Amino acid sequence: MMRFSLMLCSLLLCACTHRSTLLPTGDLGVVIERASGSVQIVNTTHHNAINQVEGLGDLSHASIVYSRDQRYAYVFGRDGGLSKVDLLQQKLDHRILQGGNSIGGAISQDGSMVAVSNYDPGGVKIFSADTLDLIADIPAEYAPGKFSKTVGLVDAPGNRFVFSLYDGNAIWLVDMSDPSSPNIQRFSNIGRAPYDGLISPQGRYYIAGLFGEDGLALLDLWHPEQGVQRILPDYGKGSEKMPVYKMPHLEGWAISGNKAFFPAVGRNEVLVMDMNNWQLLQHIPVHGQPVFVMTQPDHRRVWVNFAFPDNDTVQIIDTETSEVIKTLVPGKGVLHMEFTPRGEQVWISVRDENRIDIYDTKTLQRLHTLPANAPSGIFFTNRAHQIGL
Amino acid sequence: MMRFSLMLCSLLLCACTHRSTLLPTGDLGVVIERASGSVQIVNTTHHNAINQVEGLGDLSHASIVYSRDQRYAYVFGRDGGLSKVDLLQQKLDHRILQGGNSIGGAISQDGSMVAVSNYDPGGVKIFSADTLDLIADIPAEYAPGKFSKTVGLVDAPGNRFVFSLYDGNAIWLVDMSDPSSPNIQRFSNIGRAPYDGLISPQGRYYIAGLFGEDGLALLDLWHPEQGVQRILPDYGKGSEKMPVYKMPHLEGWAISGNKAFFPAVGRNEVLVMDMNNWQLLQHIPVHGQPVFVMTQPDHRRVWVNFAFPDNDTVQIIDTETSEVIKTLVPGKGVLHMEFTPRGEQVWISVRDENRIDIYDTKTLQRLHTLPANAPSGIFFTNRAHQIGL
Repeated sequence: MMRFSLMLCSLLLCACTHRSTLLPTGDLGVVIERASGSVQIVNTTHHNAINQVEGLGDLSHASIVYSRDQRYAYVFGRDGGLSKVDLLQQKLDHRILQGGNSIGGAISQDGSMVAVSNYDPGGVKIFSADTLDLIADIPAEYAPGKFSKTVGLVDAPGNRFVFSLYDGNAIWLVDMSDPSSPNIQRFSNIGRAPYDGLISPQGRYYIAGLFGEDGLALLDLWHPEQGVQRILPDYGKGSEKMPVYKMPHLEGWAISGNKAFFPAVGRNEVLVMDMNNWQLLQHIPVHGQPVFVMTQPDHRRVWVNFAFPDNDTVQIIDTETSEVIKTLVPGKGVLHMEFTPRGEQVWISVRDENRIDIYDTKTLQRLHTLPANAPSGIFFTNRAHQIGL
Repeated sequence: MMRFSLMLCSLLLCACTHRSTLLPTGDLGVVIERASGSVQIVNTTHHNAINQVEGLGDLSHASIVYSRDQRYAYVFGRDGGLSKVDLLQQKLDHRILQGGNSIGGAISQDGSMVAVSNYDPGGVKIFSADTLDLIADIPAEYAPGKFSKTVGLVDAPGNRFVFSLYDGNAIWLVDMSDPSSPNIQRFSNIGRAPYDGLISPQGRYYIAGLFGEDGLALLDLWHPEQGVQRILPDYGKGSEKMPVYKMPHLEGWAISGNKAFFPAVGRNEVLVMDMNNWQLLQHIPVHGQPVFVMTQPDHRRVWVNFAFPDNDTVQIIDTETSEVIKTLVPGKGVLHMEFTPRGEQVWISVRDENRIDIYDTKTLQRLHTLPANAPSGIFFTNRAHQIGL
């Protein structure tokens, strides 16, 4: 019997070792399954799902950041849940309810802190990436007793975080170099109702979109002393009341060299801006109201998806000629696109058809398809290595 | 007894799981130890060495690329050795002697192929990343019976490789979309004796340096039909015969936005070029003859090391003002610098003092130091995710 148990033991050890050594983290990703409050862990080399992790709460508009070692995915849920998912053990490592209603988060440059943006109570909370213990609570009190929803939270170089105050018409820049003493710079009157924000790929420019008026608010993080300036004064809903099916996310901007390709609000257009002088260069007519405009890692093309009722379609634009070179119709509910790190494939979530489609970016042909339960956001682990992601 | 064995079994399983789950691959790196033909596997979160792997042959000028899952480091040795090191098991997985004298290599965009550049026999060989079996042998026969040393081998988007022929005065572009039938485009008379090459960060521009004359050869991979053009006609050794202690590597170019910061040849200067029009913008006086000019991931500063006899020093230049803002003297034999993926630290090899020094890029203070055996190149696993690295 002992011999049998030892043999069993060896077999188990062997299985264990085998399993562990086959799991490097460079080609993994996480897909949000909103309806079931779960995520799929996927592998981009083998085009398969490795495992599902459940119990993550309300994942509407959920997003993810990764630990600097790529072992953990921090999942920000709409219900204020902050979940730490272990990709190696494929299980929920830790979960806290840190607020009542939250939207998005970020991880510090050094990987030690995770920040969450809250609607209720309005503000930002910063946690230890290791233990999820609270390090700093930053209520967004923009006037005595008045707390703002916070939006557009991103990380910036120098262990800083930046976010916008929807009710407070402000941008705040938080320096966490000394975690016990957050240093906050407040920029007020930046425009009415900032609803989202983005940071440029190397972390220099923070741009907030405005819901309450046209134009965008720009902060140069190399020169915060210059304050916030207004750019693209005509960008927004405009004076004509158009039906806006969905305010486009600002993370859906594709910055390629000096040019930014981004969604127009309420118009069937992708806009192109010169980032040297913040002037609009071009309007590109497209199939519907764009949601995400994503650049291939080689910057050769951008891929665009659309708001309902055109959300079955993806268009591909050549960045040099600004022409639409291809229209694909993956299926109903194309919600997100994510390129593999070097860009040879793009993964597309097709929510209403319970699929993830994988396209070859060179041939523009579909290579593979994977089942998933109403997939929305797709996030690959190379984000661990990029400022602002 | 059975209970005891089962308990032991559980303990072993536990130990095994523990070890395996502690090794995600996102914060790892490999350091070349040339004198001992070994590499150190290091961890950038804990600032430590995990293990040493020996038996890699002659590692003069050795370089590394990573598998797309970050599990394997492919080490290109000077002796024609191609070694595949397993970071998870921390051992040599496979090693072949694929040529007599080789210099550098690259991995294809999809991660399926590893290419090696050979002096002898002159040409490029392409291997399966999985098995190291030969897929394609591309002799660099530039005239009947004449074979050239090959240099400056890089990968490019679309599963392509690009390299230069030192004796053949040529650049070759190899499309491996169909691995059984390499498609080669040859660009001849590009200038005398190309000695090295680089590819710009998104993989659009290939630039070869010329040893036999001044100027650089530029190929726009978005428009190979336009052929190779000559840029920076005065770049090189010039007509004055200056002592050139070391021809600077072209991979030591820092491309930040539209500007490229790069080493002058034989002069104590870093040069700045406008990449929109390929014109020289500026000469920045520095401490010695620069070898590597590396940009921080946030593009805020570039770090420069120098050829002998000034190789104890590092200078840091502000990319906005082009001023040297700090001079550090880590110690004798500063050979290489590598930034952590989001740029909060830089690791510096100090060969003659058998150390790796880790600096904080914000405070410019030394944070940690690690022992290493005559360290030269440092390569972090985030390179797995970047075109051209």
